[in-house]
Amino acid sequence: MRIVNVAAAQMGPIQKAETRQAVVARMLALMDEAKGRDADLIVYPELALTTFFPRWFMTDQAEVDAWFERDMPNAATRPLFERAARHGMAMSFGYAELTSDGHHFNTAILTDKRARIIGKYRKVHLPGHAEFDPKRSFQHLEKRYFEPGDLGFPVWRALGGVLGMCICNDRRWPETYRVMGLQGVEMVVLGYNTPSVNSQKKDEGAQKRLFHNRLSVQAGAYQNSTFVVAVAKAGSEDGHPMIGGSLIVDPEGEIVAQAKTEDDELLVHACDLDDTAFGKKTIFDFARHRRIEHYGLITSQTGAIAPD
Amino acid sequence: MRIVNVAAAQMGPIQKAETRQAVVARMLALMDEAKGRDADLIVYPELALTTFFPRWFMTDQAEVDAWFERDMPNAATRPLFERAARHGMAMSFGYAELTSDGHHFNTAILTDKRARIIGKYRKVHLPGHAEFDPKRSFQHLEKRYFEPGDLGFPVWRALGGVLGMCICNDRRWPETYRVMGLQGVEMVVLGYNTPSVNSQKKDEGAQKRLFHNRLSVQAGAYQNSTFVVAVAKAGSEDGHPMIGGSLIVDPEGEIVAQAKTEDDELLVHACDLDDTAFGKKTIFDFARHRRIEHYGLITSQTGAIAPD
Repeated sequence: MRIVNVAAAQMGPIQKAETRQAVVARMLALMDEAKGRDADLIVYPELALTTFFPRWFMTDQAEVDAWFERDMPNAATRPLFERAARHGMAMSFGYAELTSDGHHFNTAILTDKRARIIGKYRKVHLPGHAEFDPKRSFQHLEKRYFEPGDLGFPVWRALGGVLGMCICNDRRWPETYRVMGLQGVEMVVLGYNTPSVNSQKKDEGAQKRLFHNRLSVQAGAYQNSTFVVAVAKAGSEDGHPMIGGSLIVDPEGEIVAQAKTEDDELLVHACDLDDTAFGKKTIFDFARHRRIEHYGLITSQTGAIAPD
Repeated sequence: MRIVNVAAAQMGPIQKAETRQAVVARMLALMDEAKGRDADLIVYPELALTTFFPRWFMTDQAEVDAWFERDMPNAATRPLFERAARHGMAMSFGYAELTSDGHHFNTAILTDKRARIIGKYRKVHLPGHAEFDPKRSFQHLEKRYFEPGDLGFPVWRALGGVLGMCICNDRRWPETYRVMGLQGVEMVVLGYNTPSVNSQKKDEGAQKRLFHNRLSVQAGAYQNSTFVVAVAKAGSEDGHPMIGGSLIVDPEGEIVAQAKTEDDELLVHACDLDDTAFGKKTIFDFARHRRIEHYGLITSQTGAIAPD
């Protein structure tokens, strides 16, 4: 048995006017609850410290940069690191990262139980668009404010196992899980901010969006025989609704915990990383079954090209 | 609208002692029913002409080869081609192929509405094992009797759209769908023979096996914005139970038709291939969103290698 007692810390909405300090106070409350439930690891959403600002069109770079963190930890987030170290709890959360040389990424970090950052991931699959789109019912400007991640999909030895991270839209892409699966990943943690409405298809309701969230996460878990912990920022931010539906999925693709609200809500599940072994040794023993000689298009060609 | 009215022709069990002629008679009955329901295309299972013989351990190559077809069409299957041509119906079915130069493949073909073979696929992801395994509750010797397919995952212009094929275990591998997705596939047809019991995990029941079937097919459809038509050979063959659960899935990953029995059963659904366009132009617009510079391991490394 290699138990990682993981806490998925779903967060309710963060309004545009809310401060990082107010948000961190909520995160600390969730962390304390997780400690009371003996969590080894707490996972917060994507862009956990602020509202989902890519829905707002901005042309003033200073206004944009105000949503970014230049250091991690910094004054606003240091209490998280101090509390996590005191609790002896690893953590992962997402934030907008502005590097010292001026690059902007949608980033997540992983800390060990002493609150030292041991892993960093920068979102590879940025959804949305780069310019104001008058045809959309609302904007989704991740391609405007962020560069695609430049770190690939690394994994880390942590908590007695092999952990990986991805962020939001990454979870819909099987390549995300597979690259980590090829590095033996046993638990993938991810956060998301997913609008309840498709900005390009009004009649696609929240139920369909929740279905696609589950489907992508469950398939990624099953097909790589790994746990996946998917954590939402949910509810209505300044009138923009987002799905909840945070979930923990086991290596057979089964949902073992699922959020019931669109508010701050903690899901805790004891994941035995040894449960990943059966799938990795049998039906998904990659070494015996994968046929890379037929996968060439996946890495040689970006877009789809239909036959003549 | 580009409607393909597709008939998924699930087949009940075929006992070891049954002749190809008896099986073809059942297939013709399903084809006539499909004609009555105006099908453009009928899809039969993997290894549709015989029992699922890889469960039997054989050492006599002549005994093995008796399960294979040397020509297609041949005397036993010619009635299928003649009837399909008369009905003006395209068809796809699987069979064990023995080539003139002695190679063995688990194969499927696609015909046009004049019953001309326009596409051939040879199963790439062979499950199971090559030698008798006394630890299994039953054998699954596909790696003994077949070579891995040597044709990749081609697609074909047919029925006004872009069609592809895969077979059984291929459907669990996201690479299968992605290689076809990168060629603009709009409908993937596949057959399967899936035991209701995991030969290496007795307590994994049929419900879990049906769940994995649905999960893999739905994820492949959604993540490539394509229809998928998955057709079982089902029921108990000489005491070996196989799941049914044939299904037709739309490009949003939703099940639009599903088998209720483990017998010969026809599912018919009018698939509008234009419904694949929205996903391909938005969230799964590969050209805008895929980042092949981070996918390298998928084609450079076959097996999983965990970090030190």
